[in-house]
Amino acid sequence: MKKIGFIGVGVMGKSMVRNLMKAGYELSVYTRTKEKVADIIEEGALWCDTIADCVKDREAVITMVGYPEDVWEVYFGGAGIIANARPGTYVIDMTTTSPKLSVEIYERAREAGIYAVDAPVSGGDVGARHGTLSIMAGGDEEAFEACLELFKSMGKTIIYEGKAGNGQHTKAANQIALGGVIAGVCEAITYARAAGLDVQTMLDSISQGAAGSWQMDNMAPRLLKGDYDPGFFIKHYIKDMKIALEESDARKLTLPILMEVLDMYKKLDEEGMGDMGTQALIKYYEEQ
Amino acid sequence: MKKIGFIGVGVMGKSMVRNLMKAGYELSVYTRTKEKVADIIEEGALWCDTIADCVKDREAVITMVGYPEDVWEVYFGGAGIIANARPGTYVIDMTTTSPKLSVEIYERAREAGIYAVDAPVSGGDVGARHGTLSIMAGGDEEAFEACLELFKSMGKTIIYEGKAGNGQHTKAANQIALGGVIAGVCEAITYARAAGLDVQTMLDSISQGAAGSWQMDNMAPRLLKGDYDPGFFIKHYIKDMKIALEESDARKLTLPILMEVLDMYKKLDEEGMGDMGTQALIKYYEEQ
Repeated sequence: MKKIGFIGVGVMGKSMVRNLMKAGYELSVYTRTKEKVADIIEEGALWCDTIADCVKDREAVITMVGYPEDVWEVYFGGAGIIANARPGTYVIDMTTTSPKLSVEIYERAREAGIYAVDAPVSGGDVGARHGTLSIMAGGDEEAFEACLELFKSMGKTIIYEGKAGNGQHTKAANQIALGGVIAGVCEAITYARAAGLDVQTMLDSISQGAAGSWQMDNMAPRLLKGDYDPGFFIKHYIKDMKIALEESDARKLTLPILMEVLDMYKKLDEEGMGDMGTQALIKYYEEQ
Repeated sequence: MKKIGFIGVGVMGKSMVRNLMKAGYELSVYTRTKEKVADIIEEGALWCDTIADCVKDREAVITMVGYPEDVWEVYFGGAGIIANARPGTYVIDMTTTSPKLSVEIYERAREAGIYAVDAPVSGGDVGARHGTLSIMAGGDEEAFEACLELFKSMGKTIIYEGKAGNGQHTKAANQIALGGVIAGVCEAITYARAAGLDVQTMLDSISQGAAGSWQMDNMAPRLLKGDYDPGFFIKHYIKDMKIALEESDARKLTLPILMEVLDMYKKLDEEGMGDMGTQALIKYYEEQ
């Protein structure tokens, strides 16, 4: 594989494109606003005016867009990927989206002789920049193997999770576990402040023990500095939790922590904080 | 300091006594059931029939009992510590108990010329055995310094948290953060099972990323083997969460995750699972 199309070049997508080019791939890119990718065009990516152009004569096409509606549109819309990719192309959706949609892409791709892999990531902007993303892939194992070199130029922990949709299911499990951790850290900080503790001393005392977590080590320090810049946007996390909840409901699962954390973030979003990072959950507690 | 009294010798207390003796301290011990400490008496600890005996002529007295009622009784009961310790003794409550009670002990001890330190721990049975406990201490700083050598023979991360009660407040913050983590991990596993994922593969995919935690690394493997033996008893965690909730209520804080997790564990306790380890929270979800 040499020629790659990349559709949807946001903050993370841009870093991923750069890492692919660094690894020697030829990139053509399509995104909604051309100006936003002027830098990577400068660096050698080929601009395409349409999805059809971006897909034409490419061995693999990666999508990294926003919401499930966007994924649907770029795959199935009038001038979308499925209608324009030639048979034998690998199409890899790295957006965090609905497992059901990944299965639909897989099935409609197969009818067109195209190989689809769902491969959402975790690791955020930093992981994308450093090429250390975790990549959770679902689809046919042969297709996964064929894309492995490609994945290696963007990620570190690259795991085949099974059939189509399983990459998304794994990411959903990640987002579910995440909610409890973030909320737990925010409640501990809220309690410590109210009790008059020095919060940093409290965190130093507990972070290496049984309550410790990546979020406590990495998110809490930003929060304590009043830094709410997005490593991971609240609005995107809400999207991910809605997907997890929808899939849980479909299986008659009740996940009270997921529901509670989703409600808290929705409240912050309604108050206009959707573009802040997830660590801004502390504001939910500060508003009490 | 050389002569130490130790009151309340359960699973953790026993390991702590052993580590103190290994460090060269002379230990006298008192606990409710003498037979349970036959081994450490064999190893050189001096048995006392009453608290008064266990406190007499000791430079420091450590308590590690069960519930706040037990703490109250050993300190203030008819034949308790405060009435029997000589002035100048250091009394160190390492039980996880109510910060309010720690303040009461501190004040009544001071009136008697006794120095009180609240020093709850985390790290569980394993930390106690290996002498690697985290110790969170509140009280006068001079008293903390005087007890530091003692603490070093039982723990690794030993932090002064400020005035009396602050050790307990720090532990409460730890227990609050813990609840969200455990519940998040259990919900992720519940989701993964229902979605048909291989749970171990899912955990391997996410445990080094933003959703990672000590609980995911250490508790989830036990849970997946169906091992519900207590590293940390559900019944004790319920006690700790009730204390945290009481203190939160007193400060007009609403901590929804803490409340939700407490309710889940109460349900398990009502079903007779109080003597299981906290990883048995998964059963709450399995019963759905």
